[in-house]
Amino acid sequence: MAEKCVLVTGGSGFIGSHTVIELYKAGYTAVVVDNLINSVEESINRVREIVGQNFPFYKVDIQDKDGLIEIFQKHSFICVIHFAGLKAVGESAEKPLKYYKNNITGTITLLEVMEQFNQQSLIFSSSATVYGNPQYLPLDEKHPVGACTNPYGKTKYFIENILQDMAAANDKWQFTLLRYFNPIGAHESGKIGEDPQGPPNNLMPYVAQVAIGKRPFLRVFGNDYDTKDGTGVRDYIHVVDLAQGHVKALNQLSSGCKVYNLGTGQGYSVLDMVEALEKVSQRKIKYEIHERRSGDVANVCADPSLSEKELGWKTKKDLNDMCKDLWNWQSQNPNGFRSE
Amino acid sequence: MAEKCVLVTGGSGFIGSHTVIELYKAGYTAVVVDNLINSVEESINRVREIVGQNFPFYKVDIQDKDGLIEIFQKHSFICVIHFAGLKAVGESAEKPLKYYKNNITGTITLLEVMEQFNQQSLIFSSSATVYGNPQYLPLDEKHPVGACTNPYGKTKYFIENILQDMAAANDKWQFTLLRYFNPIGAHESGKIGEDPQGPPNNLMPYVAQVAIGKRPFLRVFGNDYDTKDGTGVRDYIHVVDLAQGHVKALNQLSSGCKVYNLGTGQGYSVLDMVEALEKVSQRKIKYEIHERRSGDVANVCADPSLSEKELGWKTKKDLNDMCKDLWNWQSQNPNGFRSE
Repeated sequence: MAEKCVLVTGGSGFIGSHTVIELYKAGYTAVVVDNLINSVEESINRVREIVGQNFPFYKVDIQDKDGLIEIFQKHSFICVIHFAGLKAVGESAEKPLKYYKNNITGTITLLEVMEQFNQQSLIFSSSATVYGNPQYLPLDEKHPVGACTNPYGKTKYFIENILQDMAAANDKWQFTLLRYFNPIGAHESGKIGEDPQGPPNNLMPYVAQVAIGKRPFLRVFGNDYDTKDGTGVRDYIHVVDLAQGHVKALNQLSSGCKVYNLGTGQGYSVLDMVEALEKVSQRKIKYEIHERRSGDVANVCADPSLSEKELGWKTKKDLNDMCKDLWNWQSQNPNGFRSE
Repeated sequence: MAEKCVLVTGGSGFIGSHTVIELYKAGYTAVVVDNLINSVEESINRVREIVGQNFPFYKVDIQDKDGLIEIFQKHSFICVIHFAGLKAVGESAEKPLKYYKNNITGTITLLEVMEQFNQQSLIFSSSATVYGNPQYLPLDEKHPVGACTNPYGKTKYFIENILQDMAAANDKWQFTLLRYFNPIGAHESGKIGEDPQGPPNNLMPYVAQVAIGKRPFLRVFGNDYDTKDGTGVRDYIHVVDLAQGHVKALNQLSSGCKVYNLGTGQGYSVLDMVEALEKVSQRKIKYEIHERRSGDVANVCADPSLSEKELGWKTKKDLNDMCKDLWNWQSQNPNGFRSE
């Protein structure tokens, strides 16, 4: 049987690293390319340990066309799973050109090299942020897109458009856009997990750092939203469930451009999440209520029924699993990958 | 007095070449950069003749960062007027990646070099196509944007977003987005004009080629629109008026991202245009009625009042001027710039 090798861009990052593990579990092999701007090679080493395979890793920026070409010359891929990109919403508003350049120019360069090597399948790491402020809930894939409030979200939306237009122009392309809701948790081994550099931009890594004593308290932005306890509700998904969604998408590749939500369909409030992490960590998590942040919305929740129907994918892990695995990672690695 | 030099990207093309002339008439000087993919150097020679100045021209693609850096090292600019980009709607649907790469990566590269050289003013060649199918008429700058039906239009919309986000992030930037309606006509000298390669994509160059005998007849797509004679109505604007809009914008540069329509506010139907060119050319223009083309709309017309109010700009030339100057160019140069 020919090797079923997948190129994973951004494979050293949070979602990428977990996806490499799920690829190996499902009988695929992986080659990872990452510029290590937002991640460290130790992540790759840990994944190699977990999967028991010394898969190739290239420290290459996907904007570096010659670097990509070398990789495509050395390996044959059945698909590219494309995670590489900058992802900090706040930074994107401060440095938009950096985000447009990295995410869009990077993706265009990757697509050019794929075209050159006649490689026609790509799974793209999109985001529920493309839906903007929900017009209805839960969000299904037909919800209008494009009303993004920050450059990060726009890069996702623009790349979705590029891929959709390419698929419309030529039916050789097999594209799948996966719109992530809020990935949290970690691999059950506790060896890999989310490793933010500097103060975390996302809720749960911040909560975990408060629990471990690295940060004094959590800021909760707004407790007067129209939700059960007034704090914002999001659809948190275990990163391993999310990673498995990519493997399911890989099994179903077909001509055109498909779009799927990857979420649980279940929303939890900020205070739900704090309480759930308090429970698994057995620590008190201090928080302060602050003003709402502009751009935040009350409630974001996925309708994941299309993914279940067409990909045969469904989340298996619950809130307790997410918090338990996050805490396992955080307590084993209080300073992330840099702790040793 | 310090020289007021403007970098004109795509300055060898239809609108760019006419703008260089208006820059010189208004006391500015120009440096032109163009990759000559869709234009020929003869256009530059003719503009040099008209303005009586041997201004610098660089055959450089704006995606070539090192090439751009060399230009910025040699010259100091008060502003960049950015025309460079691919513009064929139909081709963009067939080759979307080519369009996204050229237009978006090209613009991002230009902006990076501007940032490197602390050059903060840019006037961008946008298009009424960003409005999509009009929700009301005439189109003012507050009309919703983004519902573009083809990759060409999306590149304009995406670049508008990039510039708006950059201006929001840092008030050093001075950006002006000019949304063109339908530029036609030519310089009154008849020395420069629109020079399509292959069958023209736009109405009036096609009509002119029928008049001169290069094409047997015009295809009119749809005569059952809800317009006075059933054919599509557009806001045609003389390219010299349009070029002068850029000079006015240059005189008014200020911090932020301003958006202006450049149109006349007066719509004409396809049959109006045929008749007007018949009149100035004294030739019969044969046409055939065909089915509507998908994506075409009945009526597109600008509200140019904001440009008048804030830029002090108003079109001066009427339909007869547009057709007379087009015919003058076409009859003096039946094969465009390639005729000698």
